[in-house]
Amino acid sequence: MKYSDRILNTPSSFIRDILKVLDAPDIISFAGGLPNPVSFPIEALKEAIDGAIRKNGSKLFQYSTTEGYSPLRELIAEKYRRKFGLDIQSEDILITNGSQQALELIGTVLLNKGDKVLMEEPGYLGAIQAFSLCEPEFLSVPLEEDGLNLEKLEEVLKNHPVKLIYSVPNFQNPTGLTYSMEKRKAIRELVSKYDLAFIEDDPYGELRFQGESLPYIGAGYLENSILLGSFSKTVTPGMRLGFLITKNAQLMRYLVTAKQGSDLHTNIFTQYAIHEYLLNNPYEEHVKRIVELYRTQATAMLDAMGTYFPASVSYTRPEGGMFIWATLPEGQSALKLFPKAMEQKVAFVPGDPFYVSRREVNTLRLNYTNATPEVITEGIRRLGSIL
Amino acid sequence: MKYSDRILNTPSSFIRDILKVLDAPDIISFAGGLPNPVSFPIEALKEAIDGAIRKNGSKLFQYSTTEGYSPLRELIAEKYRRKFGLDIQSEDILITNGSQQALELIGTVLLNKGDKVLMEEPGYLGAIQAFSLCEPEFLSVPLEEDGLNLEKLEEVLKNHPVKLIYSVPNFQNPTGLTYSMEKRKAIRELVSKYDLAFIEDDPYGELRFQGESLPYIGAGYLENSILLGSFSKTVTPGMRLGFLITKNAQLMRYLVTAKQGSDLHTNIFTQYAIHEYLLNNPYEEHVKRIVELYRTQATAMLDAMGTYFPASVSYTRPEGGMFIWATLPEGQSALKLFPKAMEQKVAFVPGDPFYVSRREVNTLRLNYTNATPEVITEGIRRLGSIL
Repeated sequence: MKYSDRILNTPSSFIRDILKVLDAPDIISFAGGLPNPVSFPIEALKEAIDGAIRKNGSKLFQYSTTEGYSPLRELIAEKYRRKFGLDIQSEDILITNGSQQALELIGTVLLNKGDKVLMEEPGYLGAIQAFSLCEPEFLSVPLEEDGLNLEKLEEVLKNHPVKLIYSVPNFQNPTGLTYSMEKRKAIRELVSKYDLAFIEDDPYGELRFQGESLPYIGAGYLENSILLGSFSKTVTPGMRLGFLITKNAQLMRYLVTAKQGSDLHTNIFTQYAIHEYLLNNPYEEHVKRIVELYRTQATAMLDAMGTYFPASVSYTRPEGGMFIWATLPEGQSALKLFPKAMEQKVAFVPGDPFYVSRREVNTLRLNYTNATPEVITEGIRRLGSIL
Repeated sequence: MKYSDRILNTPSSFIRDILKVLDAPDIISFAGGLPNPVSFPIEALKEAIDGAIRKNGSKLFQYSTTEGYSPLRELIAEKYRRKFGLDIQSEDILITNGSQQALELIGTVLLNKGDKVLMEEPGYLGAIQAFSLCEPEFLSVPLEEDGLNLEKLEEVLKNHPVKLIYSVPNFQNPTGLTYSMEKRKAIRELVSKYDLAFIEDDPYGELRFQGESLPYIGAGYLENSILLGSFSKTVTPGMRLGFLITKNAQLMRYLVTAKQGSDLHTNIFTQYAIHEYLLNNPYEEHVKRIVELYRTQATAMLDAMGTYFPASVSYTRPEGGMFIWATLPEGQSALKLFPKAMEQKVAFVPGDPFYVSRREVNTLRLNYTNATPEVITEGIRRLGSIL
């Protein structure tokens, strides 16, 4: 049988593939991107489910609307009005199966084969994978400590008809880096001159353990702004609840048509459950506890890296989120380091899958949210021993 | 902003659009395709959720595998081995967000722009919508009382490089028709000579209230057979749990890559819940009760049609499922009938969206699963008054 060109050109998820070999219990894995399970509000969600069924009965179990559960959309809209002063209404929100589905839908409605997609370098591999299904041409702009390189960004925009830009402005995956206020403003001004969609993917924004929350680049400012959010990192990823926000009503209509064709609608049972949970629980306090936990874990990893890594290895110092990005000396390959690390029973993600056009890179991603400080220290010690 | 060619060519769901105007409580609607909510095992599902959390804790809330929850896949595989004698193993099963997502994934991995897709005429509009996202060329073969017209099918296969065939062999949507044993064998033999994927979508197969269950056309026989199933019509549609079965391992690998890019994985919370429900409850007895309910409703509708419809209107007599298909006299338009029906406060789906190349057709779809026999009789009386 002949397969489609698009699937032949779509990478399988490197991470999900290597996660499969990490099942052995004595391996210390910094390879995943999983929230810490102690952060799941299991009892509160159980109560929320009971309450939602008591109030709404069979509505949790029936087919529902493609756009999502209206009271949940209104609750999300209200949060963005309150916290960011953005004019977001419930009709500006589409509920998706995690942010990942939002990426796929955006590709579906915007990208013809060969259209130009601008990625951060390095960039989120799930976005590379989702957009690949539409066979675009990827361009990339280096991500620096404080955001995209502006000169390179301007050069690319001037010389290529870029259709969409994908960015993760807060605690980026894979680097953990955050865009500065200055870069946000400069990027907004530059991008406003072009007819393109600006995607801000913000699954980690609430997980800030240092510094001040910053305004979005596009949301509230750019006509074709698309903001993505998720309950995966703050409530539960298993229920696959994300959302997309745009004020462009025509774009929203096309996204809804694409979602109809894709899966009719997102699981309505868990939409009711999360809505009821948000109504009856102190969400902000809950998130604060996750932030404290991740701060402790990030600190443990950074301290251990200071102790066990040679000075030739540099790394980012995230203000939030779930990842640290390390850079080996020029010319070394993180991919070649991986089997040696496995011998030491410690795992990470080699940087390769986060680039659209570079291979055998000297960078790697470390996740700190899924181990105790003690285990983190031991894992970094093992890794340091082979650097 | 410029949108993709594929979304500009994808129809919005006519049904979901007209359902929005049907909110008034005094309208009798035969337009939906909703299971009867009394069929949802709400209490048993609540207990299943409690049990699944008690046994598995945070696993219900964490990220999970793209393929789906293994014990659920095994339970599904076992059913197809037991009930149909098919050699299905858990690795042949992919859990999807309802069958609708399976259709989208199949299109993604198989269809290049312009590839030929063969549909039943009339055919399921959700499939037309899902495949449209890949911009194929649709061909169609008339669906007769006992299945596809064989001469026409052979002619199309001889003259066009068909990439996939989409069929609903049991109680088809929209017609309620079922393929006969003879047609199943003949189609299998014919199709086996061609290099194409044969999709059997079977969401209604268990809802048979008359006659004997028949073997599948492709599953167990054809190399590129894809069988789709769902818990939407027998347990709950709100949890969006469907599944795809194929023995073609290469095809399965590509489908998994496509699903990774689409949404990482299906809601694992509800996969655990449905699995626990299936383990601890008499599923077959539960389905029997739904069948009895739908038999009563179908009978009420057919009886009322016998009483109130003029002899010039013909209609199908389904052996199961959820739909009856009516044909008005030649030259009449069901679409033009619709506003008149709304004046009588009764709704149906005009046939148009179920055809890939015909408009202003004289056919319409009636759903009987969501009203009492009394209401069904009254609705058909109203409809009869304008025929």
